[in-house]
Parts: sequence; structure tokens; C-alpha cells
Amino acid sequence: MGRLLPVPGVRIGTACAGIKQYERDDIVVIELVKTASVAAVFTQNKFCAAPVIVAQSHLQDASPCYVLINSGNANAGLGKAGVDAAERCCNALAGELGVTGRAVLPFSTGVIGEPLPADKIILSLPEAIKDLNGNHWSKAASAILTTDTREKAYSCEVMVAAKKAVITGVAKGSGMIRPDMATMLAYIATDISIDKGLLHEMLKEAVEYSFNRITVDGDTSTNDAVVLIASGVLEVVLENRDSPGYADFFTALVETCQFLAKEIVRDGEGATKLIRIQVEKAASTEDAKELAYTIAHSPLVKTTFFASDPNWGRILAAAGRANIERLEVDKINIHLDEICIVRGGVKAKDYTEAAGQRVLSRKEITVRLDLEQGDASAEVLSCDLSYDYVKINAEYRT
Amino acid sequence: MGRLLPVPGVRIGTACAGIKQYERDDIVVIELVKTASVAAVFTQNKFCAAPVIVAQSHLQDASPCYVLINSGNANAGLGKAGVDAAERCCNALAGELGVTGRAVLPFSTGVIGEPLPADKIILSLPEAIKDLNGNHWSKAASAILTTDTREKAYSCEVMVAAKKAVITGVAKGSGMIRPDMATMLAYIATDISIDKGLLHEMLKEAVEYSFNRITVDGDTSTNDAVVLIASGVLEVVLENRDSPGYADFFTALVETCQFLAKEIVRDGEGATKLIRIQVEKAASTEDAKELAYTIAHSPLVKTTFFASDPNWGRILAAAGRANIERLEVDKINIHLDEICIVRGGVKAKDYTEAAGQRVLSRKEITVRLDLEQGDASAEVLSCDLSYDYVKINAEYRT
Repeated sequence: MGRLLPVPGVRIGTACAGIKQYERDDIVVIELVKTASVAAVFTQNKFCAAPVIVAQSHLQDASPCYVLINSGNANAGLGKAGVDAAERCCNALAGELGVTGRAVLPFSTGVIGEPLPADKIILSLPEAIKDLNGNHWSKAASAILTTDTREKAYSCEVMVAAKKAVITGVAKGSGMIRPDMATMLAYIATDISIDKGLLHEMLKEAVEYSFNRITVDGDTSTNDAVVLIASGVLEVVLENRDSPGYADFFTALVETCQFLAKEIVRDGEGATKLIRIQVEKAASTEDAKELAYTIAHSPLVKTTFFASDPNWGRILAAAGRANIERLEVDKINIHLDEICIVRGGVKAKDYTEAAGQRVLSRKEITVRLDLEQGDASAEVLSCDLSYDYVKINAEYRT
Repeated sequence: MGRLLPVPGVRIGTACAGIKQYERDDIVVIELVKTASVAAVFTQNKFCAAPVIVAQSHLQDASPCYVLINSGNANAGLGKAGVDAAERCCNALAGELGVTGRAVLPFSTGVIGEPLPADKIILSLPEAIKDLNGNHWSKAASAILTTDTREKAYSCEVMVAAKKAVITGVAKGSGMIRPDMATMLAYIATDISIDKGLLHEMLKEAVEYSFNRITVDGDTSTNDAVVLIASGVLEVVLENRDSPGYADFFTALVETCQFLAKEIVRDGEGATKLIRIQVEKAASTEDAKELAYTIAHSPLVKTTFFASDPNWGRILAAAGRANIERLEVDKINIHLDEICIVRGGVKAKDYTEAAGQRVLSRKEITVRLDLEQGDASAEVLSCDLSYDYVKINAEYRT
């Protein structure tokens, strides 16, 4: 992923609290400069985790100045005890740093339903604080991982109003991935200054076309969150969508989110292939999304990709059961990369098993469905279903 | 499954056409007495298979007198060529028996998108006709199987208006199982006489509480069909819901459907456990069904059952993402068989991992969610997700 650029105004420290393992750090503290504004979107799962409840509450105050993340335990499904534990950790960090507990946003990821070992976390805070440094993005990318097999991070520079701004982001996520209005954990920062309301709008929109268009297993996590930080150290201000440089910056932000989202699918539990489902010429975006997700979630489609077996009938069967208003089956064309497999709703005359096989042996495959019903489209990223998915999830807690 | 009772007025013959294998029969002919009435429900998949289109058309005529089933090829995704092939098979059977082609209902199950080997099927018809016999239900149960590992059949006797009536049914299905208003293949016959309109109503209702409440992988097949035959040989007539014996007969019919549906889940691809999801005290039946299916389909929940790991947080996370109007998370209680794991939306105080483990090591497990929101309820049968599911579906066509 190349070198991760530091974001002026943002420092990161990590430590090992030994929550689930002692081999790598599992605690991250992010320190924000006073000028920073923060926006966040959270899971729509009705059983949201304790840190989500606490972070949402703290965000209602003036801008927070610290973020505290732990991996290894989701602090979910524990009711008031979970909320109390999250608040205790926030207060402990705030105490060390001379701020109020409500200036800290807590985040957790890991197993659901086991009590958060708050004492262990609190004991590790001085080490994380001592570690604070602008160059520690990669350490953060590593410390937030759970079943992920590798770090997910992205950095870019973008010219905004004739000044060189930076965007750096990290994310984690591999299983329980079917973000709904929000996603797994991701932290993205820039050094320009952005109005808080605008920051939230930009984040929501960028997430809609990145983290909200991916799936590994169709399961929405209780702990999903994406946080966007604008430190305001660079003297460039985005006040609204007409501010000079807005479009360039927003494009770079979307690219950052899309890169991180793609990395999550690529590292999906047990995934061996990245599957891009594109639905085009649909009657509505809703229809296109529903159809794309139905195919993306079908375990039969996922195993057929794992096997590199061009069993396209499963794609057709999944399309046929999608919960959409109208589907004119005799108009549909389906492509696997450059190969047309279905034309007018039936097997394409020039399609050969050999051609299908050739495409399916690739590591990245695009399934494109043209519905010939309208102008709407949607793209969803998914992955295949392998033995390792079962292995990882059957042995998750052992 | 005990001995399958013959149904007076119904004879069955099987043969091996060698469609996909030569080890067992793959063709079934069912002959119905002239007095018989027939009702059928079909898949709601928009890409319905050619035999479904043809059977629906033929059903519009006077009662059919023959049913022709093949396994090994679904005759789906082939457009007009598929319909022509199905009609050719019907006409060939009709020609051998001196009836019109529209008196034959065709059904196919197997791989999607490969041309139906109609010639092979037609060549095998004389053998199947020669084999016609009232005692061949078990041969039919075997000949219709695909990835199934065993026959699914049920027989019972029921007193209807002081006469002993018989119900016998066979079914197949193991993968692509998430029936939607209809299901996999099932053929059920009785010897009493039932008004055709009533027969259809009874079938629809019985299916709603049996085949329409099961899932293996969430995928709805292109070829699903359930057929109910009333031969009318026994001199008992059900004209409407007030006819003497209606209630007893309907109860027996529902039991038959539920037994066959359960057998399909038990034999789900790679399944090692039967999972019964009961949602109680829901605001509406729709909510209860949606919640039950969301849990039933979650690959994370399914793998946790496979691993016998009481990772109940996954059940809670699936419940939280279900697409229902209102879920009061702090009211929910969740039981695994007799063990309460979640009370008032959080981990039950008296719950122990050892108790959870004990339940999860069973072969049949009931997950019960009490929502405390209303009077509605729904039950869905599902199974776990194992290595063998991936193996069966990755190697399906090899």
C-alpha cells in the first residue's frame, strides 16, 4: 500500500492490552488537534454495540479530541454493563490527558457478548499515549484487525484551492460485512478544514458509493462505524459544496473510501476472488441494488465462483428471485468480464464452457447484468465462498 | 420411513434414461385415474424453467392424466428450445398412451442451462410405462433425487367421513432451497375426491405452513413445484371446507407436507443439524417470518451451529439487521432449546457457556425468540453450513 502519509493535526498511539492475544497491539488512541471537526456514520443494526451508543452520544457535544479503539472484543449484547465499561475506558483516557470523558469517542470490534476487559484496556492507555506520533497510521491499521489477514490503508494528496492537502485512512473488516448506511470500522483523516455539517454530508455520500456497496456474508455488524476527521491544520476551508476545491477533494475522498471498501472484500473471510456485480439499465437504483445484492449474497453463486465453475444458471436463478417490482427476463443480458453468457434471458449462442472457465479462473471477475429497462445502475463488490469461510467461522472463538 | 401406502387410482413407473448417471433411475411417470383432480403450486422465481411454463399451461385444461418427471437436468435458462423439448417429451409420452400431449404435466430438476436430452428421455418412456404399478412410490422417491442423499417420503391413513383414506407423498430437494410460495419438487396423492378449486386452496395453505417455511441456502429454485393429486377412487367427496371430514383430512395433509419439508432440510446440502427458528409474540406474522428467515439465512449463524459453538452474539446481530418495522431490542428473550441465552436484549445472567455447548451439540436445535410485541408467530426450519456445503456446490458439475 506504499507509505502512509501523516495528517498534520493527527497523532496515533497503539498498545497491547492483551484482550484476546498478546502477539500484536489491540489498542489505538487517536489524538486530534483542537481545530479538528469529526463526522461519523454508524451501523443501522438495531442491536448496536455499547461503544456505538456512547460514541453517538459524545458526538452531540463539541468536537471530540480523542478516539479510543480496541479489537478483540465488540462490547455488544451486554446492555448497561457494556455502556458503563465503554464510559469507564473513555473517562480513564480523559483523566490521563486532562480532558472530559465526553471528548473521547470509543470503538470496539471483536467477539459479541463477552464482557469488555476494561481494566486491561485502562492499564494499557499510558503506553498508547506515550506512543502518540503522526507516523503511526500503519500501526493503527494493524491494531484494529480481527479475522482480517492484512492491513487496509490508503493515502493520497489532492490539490485543494492551490494547496496540497492529504487524506489518509485505515479500515478493518473481513466477516459480518454487509454494511447498511454505515460499515465496519474505518478512520479517515485530512488536514484541511471542513464545516462540520458539510463533513457529515460528504461522509454519508462517500460511504453510500463505497462501504455501503460491499458484502462478504450479508451480515451487518453491531459495531460498524466510519469516522472522518478534518484537522484544519492546513489553511484551506471547505464551507459548502461551492467552496473552491470541493469537487477535487470529494473525488479523492470517494476514491479513498472505495479503495478501503475494496480491500475489505478482497480480504473477506476465506475469500479467494473479488466479484464485482454491476447491474445496468435498471428501472431504478433500488432495483439495481436489490438485484446486485441478491446475486452477491447467493451461496450457490459464491461457491460456483470459488470452484471456478461457470455454472451461470445460478446467477440467473438468483436474479429471478430478487425482490424487485418487475424483471423482463427475456431482455436480460449477462456478461462475465468480456464474455456474454446470457442474451435475451437465455444462454448465449456463442457462449462456450471454455470461455466461461477462462474468466472464472481469474482473481477478479465482473458480472454485468443489462436489464434494458431504464437508466439506473448499481455496483456491489462481493467475494466467493470457500472452505476457509466455514473454517474461520466455525473456529472463530477457539 | 416405513412402508409407503399405494394410493388407489395412482400408478408409478420409473426408468433410467442416463441423463446424468446410469446408476439409478432418473425418469418417473405417474398415471392418474380419469376421476383424479390435480392442483399444483410453482416457483415464484421470475426465471422459471421450461417445464414449469408448460405444466402451468397444461393445467389450464381439463385434468391431466399423466405426470412426467426427470432428474439430472432442470431444462431451465434455455428459452424456447427448453419449452419445445418439454413439449416433445409430453407428446412422446402421450403418443405411447393414446392421449393428448396437454394431458401430461412435465417436471425437471437438475443442472440449469444445459439442453434437456429429450431423445434419451423419450427412448426410456416405454420402460417406465411397462413399470407402472401402485406400489412404486419408493422408486419415484429415489428417481427424482439430485444432490439429495436419501429418499423423502411419507404415508398416512386418515378417517374421512367414516372411510379410511390414504395420503402418500414424495419430495426431493437439498440445495437451492428457499421456497417462495412454492417449493422444490413434491408429489402428494390421496384416494378421496376433492373439488379442484378446493384442492388448490388446500394445497396453497398446506404449503404455506410447510414447504414455504424451510430454507437451506436462501436460493429459490427455477423449477420448484408441489403437486397434489386426489384420485377420487374412494367414494368420499370434499366439496368445501364444511364437508364432513375436511378438518381431519386437511390436518393429515399439512402433517404430510411438514414431514416432507423437514426431511428436505434434514438432508440439506452438507447439513449436520436441523435448526428450528421460532419467533413468538411478534407484532405481525410478516415480521416474525422476516426475522426468522434473517437468522435462518445468516452464514455466521449457520457456521456457529456447525461448530457447536454457542456464539449467540451472531443470532442477536442477525435479529438486529432484520428488515422489520420495529424491534424493541431491550424486550427480546432468546432461548436455545431449554436454555435462556438472552433476556431483555442482553446476555442472560444465569447463562453459561457449558449450557450453550450442551444444547449446540444436539442434532436438532430450536432457537426461540420472544419479541414481547404482539401475538403473531412464525417458525422456519433451517440447517447449518458445513465444509460439505462448499464441497457439494463447488464440485456440483464435475
